[in-house]
Amino acid sequence: MNQWLTGIGASAGIAIAKAFRLEEPDLVAEKKKVLDKGSEVQRFDRAIEKSIGELQKIKEHAAGTLGEDKAAIFEAHTLVLNDPELLNPVKDKINQEGINAEFAMKEVSDMFVSMFESMDNEYMRERAADIRDVTKRVIGHLLGVEIPNPSLISEEVIIVAEDLTPSDTAQLNRQFVKGFTTNIGGRTSHSAIMARSLEIPAVVGTKTALNDIENGMMLIIDGQEGKVIIDPELTVIKEYEEKKAAYEAYKAELAELVNVPTASADGCRVELAANIGTPEDVDGVLQNGGEGIGLYRTEFLYMGRDQLPTEEEQFTAYKKVLERMEGKPVVVRTLDIGGDKKLPYLDLPKEMNPFLGFRAIRLCLEMQDMFRTQLRALLRASAYGHLKIMFPMIATLQEFRQAKAVLLEEKEKLQQEGITVSDSIEVGMMVEIPSSAVMADIFAKEVDFFSIGTNDLIQYTLAADRMNERVAYLYQPYNPAILRLIKMVIDAAHKEGKWVGMCGEMAGTEAAIPILLGLGLDEFSMSASSILPARSIISRLSKASISERVEEVLQMDTAEEVEQFVRTHFL
Amino acid sequence: MNQWLTGIGASAGIAIAKAFRLEEPDLVAEKKKVLDKGSEVQRFDRAIEKSIGELQKIKEHAAGTLGEDKAAIFEAHTLVLNDPELLNPVKDKINQEGINAEFAMKEVSDMFVSMFESMDNEYMRERAADIRDVTKRVIGHLLGVEIPNPSLISEEVIIVAEDLTPSDTAQLNRQFVKGFTTNIGGRTSHSAIMARSLEIPAVVGTKTALNDIENGMMLIIDGQEGKVIIDPELTVIKEYEEKKAAYEAYKAELAELVNVPTASADGCRVELAANIGTPEDVDGVLQNGGEGIGLYRTEFLYMGRDQLPTEEEQFTAYKKVLERMEGKPVVVRTLDIGGDKKLPYLDLPKEMNPFLGFRAIRLCLEMQDMFRTQLRALLRASAYGHLKIMFPMIATLQEFRQAKAVLLEEKEKLQQEGITVSDSIEVGMMVEIPSSAVMADIFAKEVDFFSIGTNDLIQYTLAADRMNERVAYLYQPYNPAILRLIKMVIDAAHKEGKWVGMCGEMAGTEAAIPILLGLGLDEFSMSASSILPARSIISRLSKASISERVEEVLQMDTAEEVEQFVRTHFL
Repeated sequence: MNQWLTGIGASAGIAIAKAFRLEEPDLVAEKKKVLDKGSEVQRFDRAIEKSIGELQKIKEHAAGTLGEDKAAIFEAHTLVLNDPELLNPVKDKINQEGINAEFAMKEVSDMFVSMFESMDNEYMRERAADIRDVTKRVIGHLLGVEIPNPSLISEEVIIVAEDLTPSDTAQLNRQFVKGFTTNIGGRTSHSAIMARSLEIPAVVGTKTALNDIENGMMLIIDGQEGKVIIDPELTVIKEYEEKKAAYEAYKAELAELVNVPTASADGCRVELAANIGTPEDVDGVLQNGGEGIGLYRTEFLYMGRDQLPTEEEQFTAYKKVLERMEGKPVVVRTLDIGGDKKLPYLDLPKEMNPFLGFRAIRLCLEMQDMFRTQLRALLRASAYGHLKIMFPMIATLQEFRQAKAVLLEEKEKLQQEGITVSDSIEVGMMVEIPSSAVMADIFAKEVDFFSIGTNDLIQYTLAADRMNERVAYLYQPYNPAILRLIKMVIDAAHKEGKWVGMCGEMAGTEAAIPILLGLGLDEFSMSASSILPARSIISRLSKASISERVEEVLQMDTAEEVEQFVRTHFL
Repeated sequence: MNQWLTGIGASAGIAIAKAFRLEEPDLVAEKKKVLDKGSEVQRFDRAIEKSIGELQKIKEHAAGTLGEDKAAIFEAHTLVLNDPELLNPVKDKINQEGINAEFAMKEVSDMFVSMFESMDNEYMRERAADIRDVTKRVIGHLLGVEIPNPSLISEEVIIVAEDLTPSDTAQLNRQFVKGFTTNIGGRTSHSAIMARSLEIPAVVGTKTALNDIENGMMLIIDGQEGKVIIDPELTVIKEYEEKKAAYEAYKAELAELVNVPTASADGCRVELAANIGTPEDVDGVLQNGGEGIGLYRTEFLYMGRDQLPTEEEQFTAYKKVLERMEGKPVVVRTLDIGGDKKLPYLDLPKEMNPFLGFRAIRLCLEMQDMFRTQLRALLRASAYGHLKIMFPMIATLQEFRQAKAVLLEEKEKLQQEGITVSDSIEVGMMVEIPSSAVMADIFAKEVDFFSIGTNDLIQYTLAADRMNERVAYLYQPYNPAILRLIKMVIDAAHKEGKWVGMCGEMAGTEAAIPILLGLGLDEFSMSASSILPARSIISRLSKASISERVEEVLQMDTAEEVEQFVRTHFL
């Protein structure tokens, strides 16, 4: 039949398999009177028993396929179902009120969930999620409704769902789940990010996949093109099998580059590093052959909580990243909060133009206690690896000097306390505000390195909010003004013997890589999954011959001309 | 005693005179029952009569001192008090409800005010203000409370008030009102702007002037320093009389420069032009010796109304400005709306960062009907003077090309319709976005001139909203990054034989003028009141000797160093 759906290609690759619908069943526990209270309690006990047995099975399965780490969640669920503090109140309700087990379970569970959720403690809030999860399972058994369980899947399938929750994705088994497609979501939704990290082809935002596709239907997913083909003809399957083979050959070729140092065809070395948000992201960096961390965004440590992280919590996170990178460079960006990124426990003023407001280093220099705590945690962690520190949103030299002075003060204090701090921490800055690009020659005398943040640099240089659709046409990485500023920064740094990295999206973009290589960029930092494709591109480029012609793009009129020129002459 | 208050110096100059408190009296009209309705109506009639008599006196007085124009408002008030449509309902209320005249007047007046205010018509809304004004006067007479009347002041005074309303300032007589001071207000409040336009020394925002100062107290106002001295000793009065004489001598010296062409001490000519918002502002420009209009902000034509201005309305305004400037150049900026400037009748989306959003040329290129209407009005007006047109917020060359193409299309259409259009209209652009400064060499090949808009250029280059107090320290005109961008623009333009103006606040700033002169700026556009001081400064500077050293500031680290250097070496 070859019915097609189009959506958003969220994770590249081809998958060909049968559909597996992952539906949230309708679990409404209506209140009913029961006559025989004793047998209702027995019915409840049986549902608990079944749930525990099921969890045991799931746990063993998950441990084998997903690893002990991810399986631990089911152990936690089992503990909940053995807890008399949860079970006894349910039985009491059945006995005293003469109501049905489903409704009694629901009421008790709701009470615990809302109690735990209101607590100022991350651990207790996670317990609330566990209780909600097991309650669903128990009520499912009471109602005789089956709870779909992605970790129990034991044949090759493509999952079809409204959306995937974090706990769904925690249970996905890559051996059998070959791809997925969802009704909702975009390129940056949780499920899309998870698909890329698991390297499972995915098409999200199809709007109607769950309506159009039945269990067991044959499906093809093209995660590059954002296509879902339902019930394809044999010739189409054959065509896509070839595509899949080609893609896998390309992936295999990339896989061979994992341990190869990045170099151009004419032997010039550059560093390919990764942008990360949490210590857990380091796995992906190493698997993709990252030669360092070019941007560790520390904001995540501060988010999803109700108070500032302690020095100890931060130290633990930074140390973990540094240790796991085993001496490879790790560039940590100090807190870049404010603007569109708010923290509920910091009472920041509402601003008319948050992107031009009180954020990042501007805020840290004023809220110095918070800033000093982070710097102390970083300095202490520096003993465990190869740490570099950079300050975000530096607009003036005074700001850099002030931030560096605070860092040195904390370093001295720690040393006086007898704590080991590395003596070779490089201190640099983000170049993401036009003034600092224009003044790069002056800054270069005082910094150890620059990291160009193109996302912000482009938005300020063209005065266009990158989140605002109506001016999206002005978000132009290839605008010659941007390329000139990048050149200014690189030239100024090299004149002083300093290195320059880039940690904006541009660094991982196919057509930008030749220009950046030609202009002399030393370090390219990107999402882990872009590293191997970038290494492959660079290995095919001659830096010397690009350098000869790259300055031509600086004299061009428009971004379109630049991109055209690169594709014609450099790629 | 020499008690001092400090406030914001809103208008320069020294005033020494007695205090005149201008207080809004407390006019609460409480509802009361009256027994003798007939005599209550008579009491009302007498209050009307007294009010009319008073208005007549005020009108004659105002006509003599303020001119017929400003006196017309009192004629309008007299008409209201003769209008049976207002008076009869009040009398009916007294007779039918048996209530007091004050309350009856208040109720009828409120009804008319809210009716007129809800009308979609500027004229009717002004009538509402008139009714509110005369009601206050009539109720004052009924309550026996005197309404202070600034136009009746007949001896030299300094006005002390909470704040001054537009109608208060319309009645100020410069012969007697020597200065004023208010509790509230800032440098850009209505009363401050009015003080500068009337050239009356003023200190606003003192917080406590009206509490601390009694009627008849001797006062000194220093509008430069923002100081109010209460009940000064004789030696202090003497000191300030000398300061006043010196200031007046300086003003007289400036007055002699009105018809002198602007030139540096070594004979280099530059143009000193003015920024205006409406045709009425042209008077001030000519009185202050402006050599042109460097920025005609056309937004005001679109504001305070409920629909777009017609081509005819715009044509009339542009023609008026061009004619009154008698062949001197007039640079008109096309509509710069959006961002923080909204129009109620254009349904623009709410934006997260309006300064980085859909505004100015971005909006005009999309809403082309509106844009074309303005361009047609401008082209038709071009026959009546020396018109130059510039486009705001140009970020890319495509935008400039597109805007110019639309202009040329409309020109051709008009010519085909047989309408005269000047053949020598220069077409230029604002440089207020970093990308266009960085790309000035490319733009210079296609524009006839540049006008640097420093207010926006500074805010984008340093990524700091100039309206946001928390990042106000980053709004740095002397930041070397800004000076480098300005130099880039001037050098690029001169290389192509084009001229460069500046229409941001910086152009009229004492310490900036030497730098701009030295860098080769051709036209300085500022508020009319800054023109003569700027001409005086320039006449004392040697462009040649500044040019020798001006590039030193481009190599400095910070804005503070630059300003210090200028004050030491150039001023």
